[in-house]
Amino acid sequence: MSTASSNTQPRHESGRLLVFYFLLLVGGIASFWWIKQVGQELKAPAATPTSTTTGVTKSDGVDVVVHVLATLAAVIAMGNLFAWALKRFHQPAVIGEVIAGIVLGPSILGTYFPDAMHCLIPDTSSDPHGLVVSSLKTIAQLGVVLYMFIVGLELNLQKVGHQAKSAIAISHASIVVPFVLGAVMALWLYPMLSTSDVPFTSFALFLGVAMSITAFPILARILTDQRLDQTDLGVIALSCAATDDVTAWCLLAFVVGVAKAQIGDAVMVAVATIAFIAVMFLVVRPLMLRWIAWAELRGLDQRTTPLLLIALLCAALSTEAIGIHAVFGAFLLGAMIPHDSRVSKELSHKLHDVVTIMLLPAFFAVTGMNTRIGLISGFDSWLICGAIILVATIGKFGGTILAAHLTGIDWRTSAALGILMNTRGLMELIVLNIGLSLGVISPKLFAMMVIMALVTTIATAPILRKLISSGELQPYLMES
Amino acid sequence: MSTASSNTQPRHESGRLLVFYFLLLVGGIASFWWIKQVGQELKAPAATPTSTTTGVTKSDGVDVVVHVLATLAAVIAMGNLFAWALKRFHQPAVIGEVIAGIVLGPSILGTYFPDAMHCLIPDTSSDPHGLVVSSLKTIAQLGVVLYMFIVGLELNLQKVGHQAKSAIAISHASIVVPFVLGAVMALWLYPMLSTSDVPFTSFALFLGVAMSITAFPILARILTDQRLDQTDLGVIALSCAATDDVTAWCLLAFVVGVAKAQIGDAVMVAVATIAFIAVMFLVVRPLMLRWIAWAELRGLDQRTTPLLLIALLCAALSTEAIGIHAVFGAFLLGAMIPHDSRVSKELSHKLHDVVTIMLLPAFFAVTGMNTRIGLISGFDSWLICGAIILVATIGKFGGTILAAHLTGIDWRTSAALGILMNTRGLMELIVLNIGLSLGVISPKLFAMMVIMALVTTIATAPILRKLISSGELQPYLMES
Repeated sequence: MSTASSNTQPRHESGRLLVFYFLLLVGGIASFWWIKQVGQELKAPAATPTSTTTGVTKSDGVDVVVHVLATLAAVIAMGNLFAWALKRFHQPAVIGEVIAGIVLGPSILGTYFPDAMHCLIPDTSSDPHGLVVSSLKTIAQLGVVLYMFIVGLELNLQKVGHQAKSAIAISHASIVVPFVLGAVMALWLYPMLSTSDVPFTSFALFLGVAMSITAFPILARILTDQRLDQTDLGVIALSCAATDDVTAWCLLAFVVGVAKAQIGDAVMVAVATIAFIAVMFLVVRPLMLRWIAWAELRGLDQRTTPLLLIALLCAALSTEAIGIHAVFGAFLLGAMIPHDSRVSKELSHKLHDVVTIMLLPAFFAVTGMNTRIGLISGFDSWLICGAIILVATIGKFGGTILAAHLTGIDWRTSAALGILMNTRGLMELIVLNIGLSLGVISPKLFAMMVIMALVTTIATAPILRKLISSGELQPYLMES
Repeated sequence: MSTASSNTQPRHESGRLLVFYFLLLVGGIASFWWIKQVGQELKAPAATPTSTTTGVTKSDGVDVVVHVLATLAAVIAMGNLFAWALKRFHQPAVIGEVIAGIVLGPSILGTYFPDAMHCLIPDTSSDPHGLVVSSLKTIAQLGVVLYMFIVGLELNLQKVGHQAKSAIAISHASIVVPFVLGAVMALWLYPMLSTSDVPFTSFALFLGVAMSITAFPILARILTDQRLDQTDLGVIALSCAATDDVTAWCLLAFVVGVAKAQIGDAVMVAVATIAFIAVMFLVVRPLMLRWIAWAELRGLDQRTTPLLLIALLCAALSTEAIGIHAVFGAFLLGAMIPHDSRVSKELSHKLHDVVTIMLLPAFFAVTGMNTRIGLISGFDSWLICGAIILVATIGKFGGTILAAHLTGIDWRTSAALGILMNTRGLMELIVLNIGLSLGVISPKLFAMMVIMALVTTIATAPILRKLISSGELQPYLMES
């Protein structure tokens, strides 16, 4: 490569350059030395408290950024380690990260090495206003909002359309059955695990919804890992899970509305939610389709991503303003964008890694911090925990298998579908954190439900592999 | 597409499915109604304060996430609007976003529509512990750390090597001259704008560094926009700016160390900093080169990005632990990864959009919040502000032009180089925010320096275009 200097500058000028450089450095240092000597004689006005602190909030002695960065580093490192170790057991990566969050929280690290945990999350004596926790929660929320947007982006609403009838029937059966069983269970759990400031209706509704969640993204990941995503079984499972997602999140939106609102306001929230969904499907989706068709023809430009992210934030803020949760708006906006458009693919490719690797660990840290396994002590508590797992599985599995068989699918394939739909993963944790922060479920019930989410998710892949290797799933394992 | 349902399910079963679905919904609703009636009679234990709030920090009535999302949405929307409007004046997008941050802060919105500003950043009565500001700052810091890592990734240390002598001479002249002029200026400004709790040495060192920053990424953007990045002028400018970056950030690391430490500790900080730099160049870089060569041969896998992000967080935490700033570690780690490796390109592609569109707006919001133009009132203050702009420009421009001419570049091209090096942009704002949070510069001086950064950055592109269209830059505008 010919450079400007070699074009114009003869080699013997190198010496001159060296002299110049030497003079420059010596001159610079000497000048600063002289300035320093002169300047130290100078007097500045006395410090007044307002002149230095207004506009800048001092962090009360705790260095928030250091704690947040350290927590993120710890969760990412340990989460990847666990995910790597669990991979041989065909577990999705998210399991490793959830466990890392729990291990680094009060359940394990906080119990045995409280000082080590306080390096990550300082205790109330050094961070009285909870600035570190508040920052972590905000990053977690930002991560979850972006993540739910990606989940919406990857949702294939058209595919559901192809076999809408079976998908809707199976999916809604797999929601109604665990929902009702969860509500029945509320009759048993409410007097034991709730408090009198939580109305029974909110408690029962929430438990019902929490039982009926299926994790679409983890389901998709498991199907891809096992090379089932293009088979008939995979296509049905994905369609059902997609319908599940939309239905369950609409239901959750309603439940959160009920839990937050007074009895009279709940109707308002329901009306506003339905109006929001209607606007999204009847106004935003057609506009989005037209805009995307135009944008793809014209080529995506630098403005596309910012515009969509602004739309995303507005959708999230709208649902938050209605009184349902920000994640619902983000998810629904994502679902409005056709999953096979270039816009959707590029956006999901760009967002995916930063969101899952960098921002979601904050969510796992917060979830782990809130999960205090120590609260489940004694035989009775673990019995309840086991009962929750059992009821959740029976509801999801039973509902799916029943409806699937009714649509003409053989029992064994229906069972595989039932097992797949029982995956709860990250979605369940998002729902549980919403319930905990609303105060609808207690920390003890939260810990039990987290274990339920973990167990049902961990069980999916191994059981599915057993069923497949037994060789009787053949008719549904052909590529469609 | 043949689906499972159409394979196996005769059309007349549709009716049965409909009946099933109807029974399912009616049964579900009826069951829940019954459960609700029974459950409302149940009594739960009375709420105890500890049972619902432990492990969950209540947000003191302020909904942090809503405020943070709203602030991000406002800054992103307004920043893009301004950037779009300023594009016809050949301004880089960052100018629009910085102005958006200032407009949404106390300078404009807060002065004329304080209630509107408090929708974004609540005042101390509704958010007494500054949870919103603290969360925004943490997101901003995370964004800046990731951004500086990207800047490091895109840095071409090999290219600097090709013409190391000229690049180092020009670059260091363009640092030493404004540094010394800034320190001289400190003699004038210290009695007026500082307070007695800030030692003169810290003040002068900081002012010197702040004067000598060049924004490598914005320079690169301007050169690409004007199609100059492959010309001789472009290559020299980029090499000088890269050298500038490394030098100025090392200098800043030292200055922050001095400002934070007691006099005795400053030596320790300097030693630790040099040790850190040595480890990065002598241990991390060779290992990184070998690992990347191996990884590219073997193909990048899912573990690459998490591993590098963990390394990034560790580097950032190390420099923070040494007592210099987290951004320095992030930047240096990025610089250790060869800019043309696949790892570097993929990582920078994945990180770039989320970081610049989603996280950096938090930084612009915080910067805007800290910039209170109203503090610069009266003729005297604006005179000082003008003097700062003048000294910064003379120092950077003069130092560059002198050294460039000495290496054999003609005067007009040297002038173009000088103008390019005078771009300060985002880098300057990062440095200024560090100074403000350390308390080394006052909010008033901060506001003046922000204006200086804006003016020098805004001036670059139009002046450069004038020089180019005058047609006398030809010898250095050939593609090299």
